[in-house]
Amino acid sequence: MIEKPSPNEKVAVGLIHHPMLNKTGNIVTTSVTTLDVHDMARLSLTYGILSIYIVTPLKTQQRLIARMTRHWTEGHGGEHNPHRKRALAHVKVVDTIDDMIDNFSLGKQGVTLVSTGAKSDGNCVSYAKARQLLDSAGRSIVMFGTGHGMAPEAMEKADIRLAPIEGAGDFNHLPVRCAAAIIIDRLFGRE
Amino acid sequence: MIEKPSPNEKVAVGLIHHPMLNKTGNIVTTSVTTLDVHDMARLSLTYGILSIYIVTPLKTQQRLIARMTRHWTEGHGGEHNPHRKRALAHVKVVDTIDDMIDNFSLGKQGVTLVSTGAKSDGNCVSYAKARQLLDSAGRSIVMFGTGHGMAPEAMEKADIRLAPIEGAGDFNHLPVRCAAAIIIDRLFGRE
Repeated sequence: MIEKPSPNEKVAVGLIHHPMLNKTGNIVTTSVTTLDVHDMARLSLTYGILSIYIVTPLKTQQRLIARMTRHWTEGHGGEHNPHRKRALAHVKVVDTIDDMIDNFSLGKQGVTLVSTGAKSDGNCVSYAKARQLLDSAGRSIVMFGTGHGMAPEAMEKADIRLAPIEGAGDFNHLPVRCAAAIIIDRLFGRE
Repeated sequence: MIEKPSPNEKVAVGLIHHPMLNKTGNIVTTSVTTLDVHDMARLSLTYGILSIYIVTPLKTQQRLIARMTRHWTEGHGGEHNPHRKRALAHVKVVDTIDDMIDNFSLGKQGVTLVSTGAKSDGNCVSYAKARQLLDSAGRSIVMFGTGHGMAPEAMEKADIRLAPIEGAGDFNHLPVRCAAAIIIDRLFGRE
């Protein structure tokens, strides 16, 4: 299937599994949830984003993702569901956030790195401002954390820190697949 | 835990498993995906929506949902993760769309029923218009379909048919948990 030209080819998303925080604030590598790989791919492709990075340094987890995506891109899964095949064909697995940046920058140009998270600090940027910044930027990557959020050393790499999603009331525990959907729609969607 | 007063107590969401279409256009009852029950509850609570209906006529599936939610609301799950306990406490299981409407209307007042879907027809309402309508309406329920979309007999019950999410390009296969997140944010979120 030939894809229509994408308006968002200069954008990538990254689902980050290291360095993350756990419940007690220690730095850990979180487990990959294979369903989230599907969802990030389907979500990204809906918005014309053709570069989906899964970041984990664990070789066993990398093999798990490769085996899962192969089932859909080369195996029986793709015959059963060609849409899934198309979405998962865009998934790339890398060891680190830096590797993701290197890969997406094509070794040429700077990449604007955007972090997301459920907590706010004084440096968070509104969605309106982020849309402006990304519109005028070159290539950019929007990072989504797993576990209990990205470790400070990951957050510090970001050029733009997006404001958290504010709902109504005090419940603030969205699944990453829902948070990513809302954020991608706010940044790149149109009603 | 005492919840703050919710601005969206007049809103409910429904995750519908019957009557749905399958791949070949037949009317079926789809299987419940327990993860979607979690996600709909966490998503809804984030936006102050405290009524989450899972619609399926199958008693075995109803028992599955009851067993899963009990693990979190009464069992070890809730000790491990009190946020999950709080979200899943709002899940109600009903046989039919009509039962959902009866339950949420409290036998007193009309309910504005909103349908969502990946396909458009001439009667779809924009998000801006839907926000206006829901703002001035009394109680309303936003329905999300599973499988290959809601059967015509379910769509016809709706007072408002929301426009599909338009991404960029021709890929139109969002998971229901991502579509629901985007739609709930568009209807009830604020940046």
